[in-house]
Amino acid sequence: MEKEKLVLEIPYGTRDFLFAEASCKRDIETKLAGTFRQWGYDEVVTPTIEYLDNLTLGSSRSLEPQLLKLFDQSNRTLALRHEMTTPIARLAASRLKDEPLPLKVSYISNVFRREQTQMGRQCEFYQAGVELMGSASAAADAEVIALAVTCLREAGLEDFTICLGQAEFVNGIMAQYNLSADTQAELQEALEQRNLVAIDALVDQLDLPNNSKEVLRQLPLLNGGEELLQRAYDMALSEQSRRALDNLSEIYRLLRSYGVAQYVRFDLGIIRDLSYYTGMIFEGYTAGLGFPLCGGGRYDHLLADFGNACPATGFALGIERVMLALQQKAARPLAARKDVYLGYAAGKASEAIAKAAELRQAGKVVEVALRPETQAEAKEVQKAKAYRELVYLA
Amino acid sequence: MEKEKLVLEIPYGTRDFLFAEASCKRDIETKLAGTFRQWGYDEVVTPTIEYLDNLTLGSSRSLEPQLLKLFDQSNRTLALRHEMTTPIARLAASRLKDEPLPLKVSYISNVFRREQTQMGRQCEFYQAGVELMGSASAAADAEVIALAVTCLREAGLEDFTICLGQAEFVNGIMAQYNLSADTQAELQEALEQRNLVAIDALVDQLDLPNNSKEVLRQLPLLNGGEELLQRAYDMALSEQSRRALDNLSEIYRLLRSYGVAQYVRFDLGIIRDLSYYTGMIFEGYTAGLGFPLCGGGRYDHLLADFGNACPATGFALGIERVMLALQQKAARPLAARKDVYLGYAAGKASEAIAKAAELRQAGKVVEVALRPETQAEAKEVQKAKAYRELVYLA
Repeated sequence: MEKEKLVLEIPYGTRDFLFAEASCKRDIETKLAGTFRQWGYDEVVTPTIEYLDNLTLGSSRSLEPQLLKLFDQSNRTLALRHEMTTPIARLAASRLKDEPLPLKVSYISNVFRREQTQMGRQCEFYQAGVELMGSASAAADAEVIALAVTCLREAGLEDFTICLGQAEFVNGIMAQYNLSADTQAELQEALEQRNLVAIDALVDQLDLPNNSKEVLRQLPLLNGGEELLQRAYDMALSEQSRRALDNLSEIYRLLRSYGVAQYVRFDLGIIRDLSYYTGMIFEGYTAGLGFPLCGGGRYDHLLADFGNACPATGFALGIERVMLALQQKAARPLAARKDVYLGYAAGKASEAIAKAAELRQAGKVVEVALRPETQAEAKEVQKAKAYRELVYLA
Repeated sequence: MEKEKLVLEIPYGTRDFLFAEASCKRDIETKLAGTFRQWGYDEVVTPTIEYLDNLTLGSSRSLEPQLLKLFDQSNRTLALRHEMTTPIARLAASRLKDEPLPLKVSYISNVFRREQTQMGRQCEFYQAGVELMGSASAAADAEVIALAVTCLREAGLEDFTICLGQAEFVNGIMAQYNLSADTQAELQEALEQRNLVAIDALVDQLDLPNNSKEVLRQLPLLNGGEELLQRAYDMALSEQSRRALDNLSEIYRLLRSYGVAQYVRFDLGIIRDLSYYTGMIFEGYTAGLGFPLCGGGRYDHLLADFGNACPATGFALGIERVMLALQQKAARPLAARKDVYLGYAAGKASEAIAKAAELRQAGKVVEVALRPETQAEAKEVQKAKAYRELVYLA
């Protein structure tokens, strides 16, 4: 049976979505597409495969080990897209170059990364997201966060938190203490992992006054409600860090207008790739899921790498992660809707076909038998296939 | 500028779908997903990448040159899926093995083929389709054809024809004249290309009585309405060919019940890969498009290759082809819906955000300005972004 086993395998880090899952995925995607559209974010679809050079352009750290590569007929290196922000940056610098700003773009797409899989982390996974290009305003950041909250709610989630930070706050503190590049990298890594022990050890070794060391030790603990901003303001000495806090205050004020401030907590120790983000950064979490549902932020430099300098902000949401969260809270049981199984006696096929058309016209999900059955047989099929109702034409 | 040019390229045979196109694609896919669901065809999503061995299993001719290949970390050969029937056959033989029959499955998916591109033919393209497994009945074939017609109509097309043939009709004729494998292959190729000159030349060389030669010459010309079946019945001598015609009669009778017979013409010379199809075969055409919108048929052998012998029928529809047909008939102008641009004076941001929420609640597509503008400025943006209406809060 070695051969049969081989035949039925799928590659590492990939998955099949069967009926209930695929139906849930379709519903989420349809709702998100509708929400993106209603907020003025036009959808784009880009090729699954791009030139490797384009996907790695402008990324400060090497992405190559993460990418799934292949070759075209003239042996140029291609790769499966690992996210959608870079392909959209390519579009913004080419075919969308003459569109009026701000440019609001959305996508719902699979992306590919060669990585160790874990729960909720796959080599192929689905993301929905937006990019808002051409505005440096806090209003743009607030809109993107409010849209992320709306998307999570549309998908059926209520119990989640948006953790909001600012890349320039941390950068400002690092700069004011003249930390070496190595130390900054180590500190960032420890912050990313919320490794308080590592942070303490690292800070102890630094040649800094005690109150400065205390500021660095506080970084991962700077989370809370609006009052946190004032607390941070008191400790952040550099102009750069203070401007970052002012920016967060302004975004928060707008999030109140959107009626979503109750979902937001500040977390000034949030580190998403700091070389990429240049302003607010955020991540959405829900209880019981050990990784963010969504994440995003402002990235004002990426587009310049495509010859199209332009401020930008956006977010991406993990569709499978939202599905996992829905499953965990079990508010939406994962099951495809099944209304009517339509069985019929001999000679009634035509009538059954007409009846099915009528029921579908009325919005029902209807399966028609493919041969005459007794009512008892039809009842069996209805039960086996989990249709809510049997209609039988005798 | 060599570098910039390089940066903006996308690989051969791939494309970007910009706003209007992506919106049209999303609408078509959402409608098709709804129709599939209403007919009891549950959606599945399978990995974009499969083991090469699985994708090529059971195909009589070598697919390998067509496939886009890559390698996993242990150097096993993977490939991007080239169609969805094989992945679904894999599922039917594994995780769906215990589902009650008939098994009705649908998909909406991109597929990849390394081929010379031409209008409507891409290396990456999108297909929607169904597989109905576990029924050998004409009712199953009729349902699949009726569903294909319904899908094309749901997508917005009216002016199309389903050309219906039967693999066993042609096979029966080949068998009754004892044609050599080479001759059969040549004849099939000529039929596929509708190359009457080649068919004539080929038939001339055969050592057959004149009336038999005439039957072969007639093959590509055997198309028409219901009356054609009788005409073919009179010329088809083998039992195999006659059974094929009986099968088509029965399917046609059911298509009348579905109210879709007016879309159907018989075309007994249709050749889709005959080694794969074992019963009815069909293709949907519309004027002005030089390739089928959709195609399908009965394939009773494929599932056996996955250790799960089971009759099956199905179809696939080309999403880009449907989009091209819609564009050509221009019944649905390709444009994303844009309802309201919402501008506001200084100090009115909160009010504008609340107003936008209210309009979106009412189903409108609304873009809110990201900074205060004068009414004249807002009017400019509304026009530039093609919103139907301006709402301005002074």
